[in-house]
Amino acid sequence: MLILLLAALQSTPAAALPSPGQVVAQSPASAWQDIPADELLVMSLAGGKRVVIQLAPSFAPVHVKNIRQLAADHWWDHTGIDRVHDNYVVQWGGATVPKPLPAGIQQHPPAEYTFASDKHRLHTLDGRDAYAPRVGYMQGWPVAIDAGQGTLLHCYGMVGAGRENSPDTGTGAELYAVIGHAPRHLDRNMALVGRVVEGMGWLSGLPRGTGSAGMYEHAAERPPIESIRLASELPQGERPHYQVMDVHAPVFADYLKARANRRDEFFIHNPQAVDICNAPVPVRPSPAQP
Amino acid sequence: MLILLLAALQSTPAAALPSPGQVVAQSPASAWQDIPADELLVMSLAGGKRVVIQLAPSFAPVHVKNIRQLAADHWWDHTGIDRVHDNYVVQWGGATVPKPLPAGIQQHPPAEYTFASDKHRLHTLDGRDAYAPRVGYMQGWPVAIDAGQGTLLHCYGMVGAGRENSPDTGTGAELYAVIGHAPRHLDRNMALVGRVVEGMGWLSGLPRGTGSAGMYEHAAERPPIESIRLASELPQGERPHYQVMDVHAPVFADYLKARANRRDEFFIHNPQAVDICNAPVPVRPSPAQP
Repeated sequence: MLILLLAALQSTPAAALPSPGQVVAQSPASAWQDIPADELLVMSLAGGKRVVIQLAPSFAPVHVKNIRQLAADHWWDHTGIDRVHDNYVVQWGGATVPKPLPAGIQQHPPAEYTFASDKHRLHTLDGRDAYAPRVGYMQGWPVAIDAGQGTLLHCYGMVGAGRENSPDTGTGAELYAVIGHAPRHLDRNMALVGRVVEGMGWLSGLPRGTGSAGMYEHAAERPPIESIRLASELPQGERPHYQVMDVHAPVFADYLKARANRRDEFFIHNPQAVDICNAPVPVRPSPAQP
Repeated sequence: MLILLLAALQSTPAAALPSPGQVVAQSPASAWQDIPADELLVMSLAGGKRVVIQLAPSFAPVHVKNIRQLAADHWWDHTGIDRVHDNYVVQWGGATVPKPLPAGIQQHPPAEYTFASDKHRLHTLDGRDAYAPRVGYMQGWPVAIDAGQGTLLHCYGMVGAGRENSPDTGTGAELYAVIGHAPRHLDRNMALVGRVVEGMGWLSGLPRGTGSAGMYEHAAERPPIESIRLASELPQGERPHYQVMDVHAPVFADYLKARANRRDEFFIHNPQAVDICNAPVPVRPSPAQP
């Protein structure tokens, strides 16, 4: 009798706690914010493969301004992916694009690697982080805070601006997407400008380059980029529409709790913890309008 | 004059600290241990692509015993990869292999998800970990320690045994390799049996499956596995030879220090921290014998 009672006590909370996916699926419409069309970058790869990147203009405004102009100028069209470095990054628009930048591009943007930590309101993630005393979410993005300075985080799928050794050498023309375990040592060292919200597998599944740092050694190996456009410059019928969860909505706290407490039938041990790159902010295609 | 002096003071320690790659390249031969041929599993994919997995018999002995027998029985030959789940796992030998397990396989291995933490000597990694109060390295493997129990970690490239919901349902016939940000919530929930030491890009670069959890929806999509063998059962000339760094060698501490302190010319901010999955134990092909 006692054993049965204990079993019942132990199993009730497990059944009561929904999975992260269930929390997201059951969230109210009010918890979601539309991503503006001029904050979505649409990359068309050969074979009809589409990658959509959400830009982060409030964290890297000068780099994003450059990126918007480069897309408007069709600068990346008919170029290719330069390198795929396993467990690190996919990179394009770099040294293998042998043409000068268009007029009007800010050639030496400020080093937008950090920001004043009171810039946005923080939803702190409870728990320990290897790299910073405090991590959490601001305006839909993963951030770390240390000594009054914030930084976006190099989590899987985040997109940043490549640069040379000098910090004023990245313009946003050369971009990379993180395809492995979060290279958090790059935090505060690079300008993160966005994240992939659709088609990540088209990038992460590319053949690894065989040259130094995953460079493709022969031009013919480079997967072609047909075009990169802002969604706002595509015809209405071709635009992707996405929403991001409001990190200050009550359901986002439920989502983090579900991420840290895995109690469905598969889990024997509940980790009771989650690292920030394993709790990405939910993004979804906008529901069809009635 | 003062500015020049300060610049000199700042640059001297940077130049004095070698990069992680330099530390490994300059390590003495005594810091390396040969991996026995019966602890290397050689997977041959179509097109001459080779993947080599180092097994962890001292942490998952029953699962590894099964795996060795399955390889000897050629059980995986002429099968295929079942699923590629982006930012999670590549998996093979599972439900899509419609044949019974050979006689002699332990059908219900013990749940080798944890071990007594005094089993091996620990080299602690300084710093915070999101999932465990203490992490480090034992016998060449990344581990977490909590309340007297150790567990191997689901870092990039680690290989584990798939199972159903019940903990006694994974035999080692169905295996997965981690291909994204470390899914550490699986620690203590699955038996880790090894790690990929060669050819990781052949797995991580596979096309993502379009079915639920990355399953390939059509048999023709599955990348063929030609064979999986223990290196000890291959002809001498076909055997791979690898070495792993001794985690108690002094140079391993230097390597961890270099991983946590990035001071080459590219880095503007030195993270002064590293998470354990960003500090994998060095493994290298055995140097040619003189």
